Formats: sequence, C-alpha cells, structure tokens
Amino acid sequence: MKNQTAYLTGAQKIELRDSEMPRMAPDEVLVEVKHVGICGSDVMFYEDPSVGGRLDTPLPVVLGHESAGVVVEVGAQVTGLAPGDRVALEPGVPCGKCRWCLSGKYNLCPQVNFMACAPWERAALSRYITHPAAFSFKLPDNVSTLEGALVEPLAVGLHAASRAGAGLGQTAVILGSGCIGLMTLLACRSMGVSRVVMADLFDNRLETAASLGADLTVNSGKEDLTQRVLEFTGGLGADLVFETAGSPVTTALTPGLVMRGGRIVLVGNIHEKVSFDFFALNSKEVDVLSVFRYRNLYPVAIQAIAAGSIPVAKVATNFFPFEEAAKAFDVAKNQKQTALKVVVEF
Amino acid sequence: MKNQTAYLTGAQKIELRDSEMPRMAPDEVLVEVKHVGICGSDVMFYEDPSVGGRLDTPLPVVLGHESAGVVVEVGAQVTGLAPGDRVALEPGVPCGKCRWCLSGKYNLCPQVNFMACAPWERAALSRYITHPAAFSFKLPDNVSTLEGALVEPLAVGLHAASRAGAGLGQTAVILGSGCIGLMTLLACRSMGVSRVVMADLFDNRLETAASLGADLTVNSGKEDLTQRVLEFTGGLGADLVFETAGSPVTTALTPGLVMRGGRIVLVGNIHEKVSFDFFALNSKEVDVLSVFRYRNLYPVAIQAIAAGSIPVAKVATNFFPFEEAAKAFDVAKNQKQTALKVVVEF
Amino acid sequence: MKNQTAYLTGAQKIELRDSEMPRMAPDEVLVEVKHVGICGSDVMFYEDPSVGGRLDTPLPVVLGHESAGVVVEVGAQVTGLAPGDRVALEPGVPCGKCRWCLSGKYNLCPQVNFMACAPWERAALSRYITHPAAFSFKLPDNVSTLEGALVEPLAVGLHAASRAGAGLGQTAVILGSGCIGLMTLLACRSMGVSRVVMADLFDNRLETAASLGADLTVNSGKEDLTQRVLEFTGGLGADLVFETAGSPVTTALTPGLVMRGGRIVLVGNIHEKVSFDFFALNSKEVDVLSVFRYRNLYPVAIQAIAAGSIPVAKVATNFFPFEEAAKAFDVAKNQKQTALKVVVEF
Amino acid sequence: MKNQTAYLTGAQKIELRDSEMPRMAPDEVLVEVKHVGICGSDVMFYEDPSVGGRLDTPLPVVLGHESAGVVVEVGAQVTGLAPGDRVALEPGVPCGKCRWCLSGKYNLCPQVNFMACAPWERAALSRYITHPAAFSFKLPDNVSTLEGALVEPLAVGLHAASRAGAGLGQTAVILGSGCIGLMTLLACRSMGVSRVVMADLFDNRLETAASLGADLTVNSGKEDLTQRVLEFTGGLGADLVFETAGSPVTTALTPGLVMRGGRIVLVGNIHEKVSFDFFALNSKEVDVLSVFRYRNLYPVAIQAIAAGSIPVAKVATNFFPFEEAAKAFDVAKNQKQTALKVVVEF
Repeated sequence: MKNQTAYLTGAQKIELRDSEMPRMAPDEVLVEVKHVGICGSDVMFYEDPSVGGRLDTPLPVVLGHESAGVVVEVGAQVTGLAPGDRVALEPGVPCGKCRWCLSGKYNLCPQVNFMACAPWERAALSRYITHPAAFSFKLPDNVSTLEGALVEPLAVGLHAASRAGAGLGQTAVILGSGCIGLMTLLACRSMGVSRVVMADLFDNRLETAASLGADLTVNSGKEDLTQRVLEFTGGLGADLVFETAGSPVTTALTPGLVMRGGRIVLVGNIHEKVSFDFFALNSKEVDVLSVFRYRNLYPVAIQAIAAGSIPVAKVATNFFPFEEAAKAFDVAKNQKQTALKVVVEF
Repeated sequence: MKNQTAYLTGAQKIELRDSEMPRMAPDEVLVEVKHVGICGSDVMFYEDPSVGGRLDTPLPVVLGHESAGVVVEVGAQVTGLAPGDRVALEPGVPCGKCRWCLSGKYNLCPQVNFMACAPWERAALSRYITHPAAFSFKLPDNVSTLEGALVEPLAVGLHAASRAGAGLGQTAVILGSGCIGLMTLLACRSMGVSRVVMADLFDNRLETAASLGADLTVNSGKEDLTQRVLEFTGGLGADLVFETAGSPVTTALTPGLVMRGGRIVLVGNIHEKVSFDFFALNSKEVDVLSVFRYRNLYPVAIQAIAAGSIPVAKVATNFFPFEEAAKAFDVAKNQKQTALKVVVEF
Repeated sequence: MKNQTAYLTGAQKIELRDSEMPRMAPDEVLVEVKHVGICGSDVMFYEDPSVGGRLDTPLPVVLGHESAGVVVEVGAQVTGLAPGDRVALEPGVPCGKCRWCLSGKYNLCPQVNFMACAPWERAALSRYITHPAAFSFKLPDNVSTLEGALVEPLAVGLHAASRAGAGLGQTAVILGSGCIGLMTLLACRSMGVSRVVMADLFDNRLETAASLGADLTVNSGKEDLTQRVLEFTGGLGADLVFETAGSPVTTALTPGLVMRGGRIVLVGNIHEKVSFDFFALNSKEVDVLSVFRYRNLYPVAIQAIAAGSIPVAKVATNFFPFEEAAKAFDVAKNQKQTALKVVVEF
Repeated sequence: MKNQTAYLTGAQKIELRDSEMPRMAPDEVLVEVKHVGICGSDVMFYEDPSVGGRLDTPLPVVLGHESAGVVVEVGAQVTGLAPGDRVALEPGVPCGKCRWCLSGKYNLCPQVNFMACAPWERAALSRYITHPAAFSFKLPDNVSTLEGALVEPLAVGLHAASRAGAGLGQTAVILGSGCIGLMTLLACRSMGVSRVVMADLFDNRLETAASLGADLTVNSGKEDLTQRVLEFTGGLGADLVFETAGSPVTTALTPGLVMRGGRIVLVGNIHEKVSFDFFALNSKEVDVLSVFRYRNLYPVAIQAIAAGSIPVAKVATNFFPFEEAAKAFDVAKNQKQTALKVVVEF
C-alpha cells in the first residue's frame, strides 16, 4: 500500500503527492477511500486559503470531509468492524467528556476535531486515511460508498429537519436550492412532510428540486415569493421555513412566509448582519432555530438510504477520478450554479 | 331528501328504517354519507349489545363512526365549508373547555361526545347526518370519500406512532396484523420508520402486511417471535414495539422485544390483567405508552393521503351497499380473519 | 347592584360613569371585581388612544385585563363555580375550534376575544363584569384577589420560562427589570433555575430584582453587561437569555450572552427592526424563541402561588381605590421607573 | 499517604485493611475520600454477597458508590480541577462511544463501569481512590462533601422527576418514603411541583416526609390510599405517581391514583411479576416511565444545592467514622425502618 494525497498548495492549486501511510490508534480503522464529495467550504479554501485574510491556514493543507471507503485494517480495540467492510466516515470527532458531549449534543463540543479544520491535520482526500471506529459507520450491502460519502451533507439537511420537528402533514418552504437546500428537501420528504416549496434564483436548480419532489418551485428573482407561498398555503403560511442560502435578503423574508406558531430554521451561515423584524415573530409566536453541523444522524441516514427513503445519489452531479482532483475543484469553483455536488472517485 | 338509518334492533339484527332528517345547529353541516367503515367495536355491539352484561345499551341503536360524505347544507355560522364539499368526519366532539381540551389533549375530554357511544345519539349509518363543522374536514380532489372514512382507523395508528416518536432510521415491531396493526404499519412508514416487523397468528394477514411494506413477517404461533426479532436487530431489539392485538400473551412479550431506551406502545385494549415483568423495563429504561383514540390528526392524515404517503385504501377488504348493511355486519363478524376492514357504500 | 365603569374618554382622560349591568350568557359568571392591575398596554392607550395614529380606537373605551373578583351569579350551564367563589379571570377567550385551539396553542387563535382589545367590548375596569366560566379560575383560600389579578402578568413570565425549558441548575439572564422582567424572574425561580442575572438602566428596579432573588444585578448603562455575564458564568454564557425590555439594543446583545446550545427568549415587543448577527447563533446552535401572551397557565400559577412558590404580590407597588382610577393611570404614566405595577382596588 | 480499604470478606463481615495506593491515569484525579453514603444495594451485598445465589461475587470485594472527597493529585491531561478542590464523584463511567453515549443517554451504556459493580474493581470505601476527572464534579464553597456524597441518591430522584416532566402546579404521589422516596420528594419540590402526597407503612418515615415538605402523608397500611388521593385531588387523581418501594402491591395501585393523561414512574426495582391492569392505562392514556440510574444530573444537582433549592443533607440520619464502617453496615441492615441514610465519614 502506497499512499497519495491531494494537497492544496496555494490559491487554486491542488497537487497530488506521495504521502506517508497514516498511523492508526488502537480504537481506529485504516480506510481505503472510495468517494469524497467536495463541499462549499472546501471550495472556499481552494479559492482563497486565507478566507479573505481571516484565517492563517498553514499550506500545504489537505481538504475533504465528505467521505466513504473500505476498511483495510482495524485497531486492536475495535469491535464490530472488519477489513472489507465499507464505511461512511463522520468527519467530526468530539472529546466525549464535556457537558455537550455527555448530553448528546456532541456537535457543540468546543474540542471537536473535524476533518480539514485546523488544528486537526486529518482530511479525506488521500488514498488511505485513519479514523476512529466509533465514527466509521458500516454500510449495508445496498448502500454504495458514493451514498456513504453523501451522508455528510444529507446529515445537515436531516439535522435541520429534525430540529424543526419536520413531520407528516406539514408544509415546508426551503429558501435556496443548492446542495444543502436539496438535502433539506430530501430530509423533509423522508420524515413525512407533505408539501415542499423551493425557491432559488436559478431555474436549473429549481428543475432539479422539482425532479427530487418539490411541489412548487419559485424563482424568487422573477416572482414574488411571499405572495406565491401565501397563495399555496391558503393565506396561512408554511409550518416550516428553512433558510439554506445564507442570504440576508431571504432571511429577512422568513417572518412573512411562516404560519402562526411555525418555525424558521437557519441552515446557511449568514455572514452579514440582517435587519430583522422580530416583532413579526412575537405576534405569531414563531421560533428561529439554528443549525450547526449535525449529531447522531449517520446511523439514521444510512438506515433510511438502505430502506429506499432517500435517493441521495441523485444530488451528485459531477464525477472526477482522484487523479483529476484539481479539475474537480476547478469545476466546483467555476460552475457553482450547475455543479451542485462534485464527487472525487478513487 | 328522505333519510334512512340502519338500526341495531337486537343481537345480530340490523334493520334499515326510514328516519327523520337530523336538525342542524348553526355551527354544523348536513352531510350525505358516502362511506362508513365498520370497526371492531361496532361488531362487538352487533354481536352482543350488552357486551357481556356490562352495558345497558338502549335498543334500537345506530352504529358507525368511520365516515365521510358530501356536504349538503351548512349552518349559519359555518365558514370554510360549502355544499358539494366532500368531508371526513372526526367522530369525537369534545367540550372545548376542560383542562384536557384547552391543553390540546381533547381526546381525553371527559365530556366528549362520540358517535355511536351513549349518551350521544348520533352515529354514521344513515343517509344523512349532521356534524359540527369544526370536526368535518374537507377532502382535496385527489382524496376519495372511501379514504376519508378510513382516516378514522388510520388516525389511531398515527396517534400511536406519533406518541412513540416514530421516525427515520428506526426499527418497529407491530404485534397483531389486523386493521389497526396495518394502520400502525402505514403510519410508521409514512413517518420514516426504516424497518417494520409484523407478527400475527394468521398467514393471510401477514401476507397483507408484507404487501403493505413490512420488512419481516413472523407467524408467532409457529415461530419464536423474540428470537426472530433479536436476529433481525442484531441482538439489540427494536426501537419501538406496538401491541395492537389486545392480548395478554403478546403484551407480556414486549419487554423482551425492545431495545435499551426503547418504547412499548399499547394500542389494543387489554381486557385481562397481565402478569408483567416491570424489572425488565427498568433495567433498560423502557417506557410503556398508552393510546386512547387520537387528536389533531385528521388534517395531518388527509394531507398525507393527498401527498401519496399513505395508501390507506388498500386496507379496505370488503364492500357492501347500504341496503346490505346487515350482510356487511354478518361478514365483519364471521370472517374476522380475512375481512380486515368492511366498508358500507352509499 | 349598580354598575360603574372607568371610561377612557380621550387622551389621558379617565372618567367614572354609571353603566349597565352586563348580560350573562349561560356559560358565564357575573363577577364583582376586586383588583385590577394596570398593564403597560393600558398606559399606552391612556397616553394616546390612537397609538401614534396606528389604531382607530372608538372612544370612550374601557381598559383593564388583569383582574380578579368574587362570583355573584353563575349561568345555567356553569358547574364548578358558585356565588361567593373568588376567581382570577383569564382575559383572552379563544374560539375553541381552530387548529391552534384544538392543538392546545389557544393563545395563537386568530379569533380570540381579549379584554380591552377591539373588537371585543369587554374590559375589567367596572364594578361588575361577566366572563366565561371556563376562563374564570377559582382561587384557593390562601390566594388573595390581589394575587389573582397579578396572575395575568405572571403568566407572561411563566410562559416565557416554560417555552425556554427553564429548569433546575440553569443560569438565566433577564434583560429589563420592569414588571415583566420581575415576573420572569419569579417564574424562573419557581421552576428551579439556580442563578439569575438581571439587567436594567435604573438602580431602583435592580434593587427590587435583588430583593426578589436575583443573584447578580447589572446596570447596563454603567457596566459592560456582556463582560459581567461572562465573568459570572466562567466564560460560558447563560443557558437562557430573556429579553423583556423590547429594546433593539439589548436584543442585539443576546447572542453574546448565551451559551453554546442555549436559548434566547423574546418577551418584549420590539417595534423597531434590529440589526442582528445570526451567524453568532448558528456557530453556537442557539435558538430564538418568541412569546405571545400565554396559555394553560392560570391553574398552574394559582397552584404555585397557593403552594408558596411565587411571592407575586411583592411586585405590586402602588394601590388606588377605584374612585381614584384616573390618578392610578396618571401615576402609571408618570412614574414608570418606580411604579412597576399599579393596582386598582374595589 | 497510606491507603486503607473496607473489604466485605464474607456475609456481614466488613474488615479494614491496608491497601495499595491506586494508580491514576492521565485523565484521572486522586481523591481523598471524605463521605460515603451506604445504599440499599450495598446492604443487599453485605447481607448476602451471592444475592440469593444469583451472583458469583468474588470476595473480598469493596462497596460504596455514593462519595465525595478532596482532590490530592490530578493527571497530566486534567484541566479544570486542582489539588484541594472538593469533588462529588459520579460512580458510573460510560464508554463514550456507543449509540447511547453519543445520544446523551449514557446511563444506558452497556459497557458502563460502575463503582462496586463487577467487573469494575473500583469502589468508594477507601481512604484514597482515583476517578476520571470528567466524572468528578467540583463543589462550590457552600456545598459540603456530605452533600456531595448525597448527590448520588438525589440524582436518582431528579432523574425520576425529570423523566416525569415534573413541574409547576402539578400534584405528585410518591409511594414509599425511604431514602429514594424522600429524594424524589426533594426533586419534585425543587422542580416546582406544588403538592406532594407521600405513602409508606411506617409512621416515622412519614414524619420525615412531612418535615421535608410533603403536603399529605398516608400510612397505606392503615388507610385507603386510593381514597385519600382521590379526596385530595378532587377526584381527579395525581399528575404524577412515583413508585419507589419496588413493591408489586403499590405498583398495582398506580393506575387508580393517576389522572387522565398523567404519568406513572417506576423508580424502585420490582423483582416480582405484577398482575397489572393495562386497560386502566389506555382508557386514561397514562404512560408508565421507567428509570435506570441517572444522567447529566451531577452538575444540575450541585448547582441546585448551592442555590439552596434542595436541603439534601436532611436525609442523612446516621453517621459513623470510617474506622466503624462495620458498625455502619450493621445499623444500615438492622435499622432499615429508621436509618434512612447511613453515612461513613473520613
């Protein structure tokens, strides 16, 4: 076994280099990577490793945190996994001991180690990586490693839907039809949400949304979204409104889209301040829930994919072999509107 | 308009007679009935109106509480419904003022009026009936009155699944594959439960269960149910165990079928005392939840049927015209094993 | 029995006039009023009946919705209440039939009738008023009608604390130490919150807060509130942050005061838009909950007062006989800083 | 530092012997023990180490799991604790990696190591013990090590009350007034429960219950408990019924004591099967919740004691120096009725 890693060596420079085989701890597994999805945050670092001067990212650095592969070797303390098992890797490994970990909210652990996030030096874009067995989830026979890699963005959608209390009979509005918007759509559908409205500025994304089960799609650049949603809901507004675009504009619209007693869920990171009408929330007793990554959802997602409830593979749009990792990033950066999810295959 | 009603005039005697048109209050609607499902409790009264001497049921009495029809006339205060609308009728009308009503648990209202339950004299098996508009739910174009009538038993399954916290990724065991067992299966599926095991003593029912989406069916008269469930769940037991058979035997099995931290839901009425191992609950911190009818689920069920999430019509097995109501009851009584849901059509 | 009512006849003009005895419906009670608290919203109308031109309030109008009294007569359908019973009156009477009422969220009923809110013409500042029995709650012997009248603002605090999931071991920050801030303090304490920080711009209010059990009081005009809260919580922030001042300034501070995974609760109405940092919410997965009045809390509050858990009477600062109602309003308007709760006595 | 340990060397034989100083792992602390409470399970082993032949307990064995002490030394990886800190030790240390640990239900971890439970060899009755820092909770200045040791049984009561959703305005019935019954009383009170009825067969225990705040005490050997509870609750029954006696007799009474929609919580281990009326549960939609130890409650309990909400020290009845550990066990065994909580002091 010889290892090879895709390094980000500078802005918009990805180089494949030979690398050391990683050392495996007794509670870890060694995994031959099969699929890695490229996330918006990977692209952000690829475009500008300093993120506009805000971070001092030490180069070269490795990217990638949406991954699945095949177990090659297991540490001495590992039970329940064996060489040959295919696994999806949950990229965040929490401390296990703080108040958030002990109470089951390990996504909020201040000491979490997360792939491709400093100071942890691990990331997915290598031929071989090691990972704690407790965060390596075995895939059933009818779930592919492509689906396994896509569990990561799906988990964001599931966490959002789950925090929202998404369920049978409800109507949801999803603002933004990029990868996370579509994952939220799939999550809502799998949890029984009866009607989903999706909004975006790009028609091609809305077509994908429709093909994945959106009941109504609205190009909010061309139509009055609030009016369309109120018409669709008989004037009531939606039970749930998910903001996945990270936009101050759509965020400011949310109070007008939601029903009395409904919930707004902020999935996208909104980097600018928003001029927000909180009075509109109080008069309808609406809550604003926020979302940070996900927790306890890899096993759930894998079971649901295995049961046929979530056609997650349909979200992947562009595939590149590992050898063309540089091209994969180039496409992810330059074709954002259409390349909803670029995947690197090994 | 001339009214006609099916009266239970004695044990196993159903007679059609002309009857008065009901008087409609200002907040009620007059409905031309289209479909009425026959429930196990209807059959119980049909077999013995005194229920083994326990009740002093005044004869003649009218039965039927699973119904849907077409609005003929609306009271002066009614908004949101108009003649010609097709509606499903929620049969229990609570007081609206007690602590249970005010807190949303109106199914527990001690003053509830429920169709075919003394002292309320209303029931569904007439050509025309009146009902409060607030409990008459408009059916969308793509939901039939047959489906509307079946919302009632479906709501029992939905309430059970809902109280259980049924959701994505879970495994459920359902004990009993009669009408309510199948409705619980449909409810679990629609709420995202990934795997369902169904048990019964009759193979034909299990075949129906499999055709409606059960992943494993077990004839618990021929096989060791506990062993099969533990095999299926890798020794863990199920997240959720629903008892729908009302049997002390299956109830006593439940602690052995459920996972640490799981939930047992009692849906069937268990008329005999059960010798129960509560210690087994404590060591796994398992809860036993009980179910009484349902609440706030008619709109949810109708939306879910409209969205294609619940193929509820598949549970109806036998159909009779209103003129043959007597025969409908006869079949419901004598072919319990196969006639899972008998429906009277108008 | 002769009735007399305090009318608002123009801006800052309160006149006592003889009035008709109200007619009682069969499900209502006739109550001789004993105590009425004056709310900030009453003062708002008193100052300017048109509320800055936003409302077309028909004058003369009656104010007052925080009330308790003695039952004089009961309607024919009323059970559970008798002449001589002392009762607290919940001022909002919902329709009992809409989706919000049926699901227990009756405070969100769009058809609610609320004392002193048009179009309902009922309000508390009369010697005799009628009210639905279902919203007239009997006071135990050890709860006074003064306490009964104060249940209304207390219920706001209890609803806020309840929505927040306030409980044992937590730390809460309450922004604003006016009447509602203090009621939120009492609510938190009664539900087990271990430590409460209160902030205000006025020292006298903070002294009251301290005397009612605040562990730390901060004059946010003189000290850096964020720094004080972080010191007090060992850098973690508070589990719960309640905004009761209705101020854009304090609202904008909330994300910096709250712990990872904590909750911000908006109690005060914030009439201006707020420039808000939602990114700070997402990175800590903090929720913003809003509050509209209260629901299902009168019985809870009365039991808690009876049990000695909530010394609500301590919040009342100024008392006037009904004959001096005009003066009561004058003081409520002109001494806002010190007259935290003005009460009219009959 | 020389260590000394109290060994159980045979049935009803406790011997103090010199022992090795324990070796501390890098994430552990070395603690000089100050207080150890003796639990009913300790007494059970003391009376018969084989527990009626059910266990093959290897003798000698060390007992004790309710403990607090002073930190003497901290491991290299420990942050947040220093020598001299006083700490309460949570005796169960879970794996941190299984589905129950990750979802915050670590009390259900199948691999948990619990003091004085084989196969773990650690227990509290030594002068010096080591313990993971993550389960060693620093006591504030105003909380004593006696209180720290009593956090363990208190946590059982808090977990029971917490699972029950105990809160303001409710009425609770607690069956059994031994140590756990009293801890449940204190827990209910601290969480706002307004009225508590306590039942027992021994008047002295009921006097203690009354002195700790029970509103009604019933000697169920002399009076009809169901009748007394129904009288006390105006015929409604209690919101919450806690069974802490572990008795089939009181367990069978619970459905008759609880309100429609209420909850029964099984705290005591019921080693015999119970002939139980589940039909009575369904007709009132009552849930039966079970309790296994506790989770995430040490910090909560310590904050609540510090805030003065829980006078837990009042439950300790008998004190013995470590040198008289044998006598402590003798009293705990022979004076069960009065020695509600025996404590060993160092």
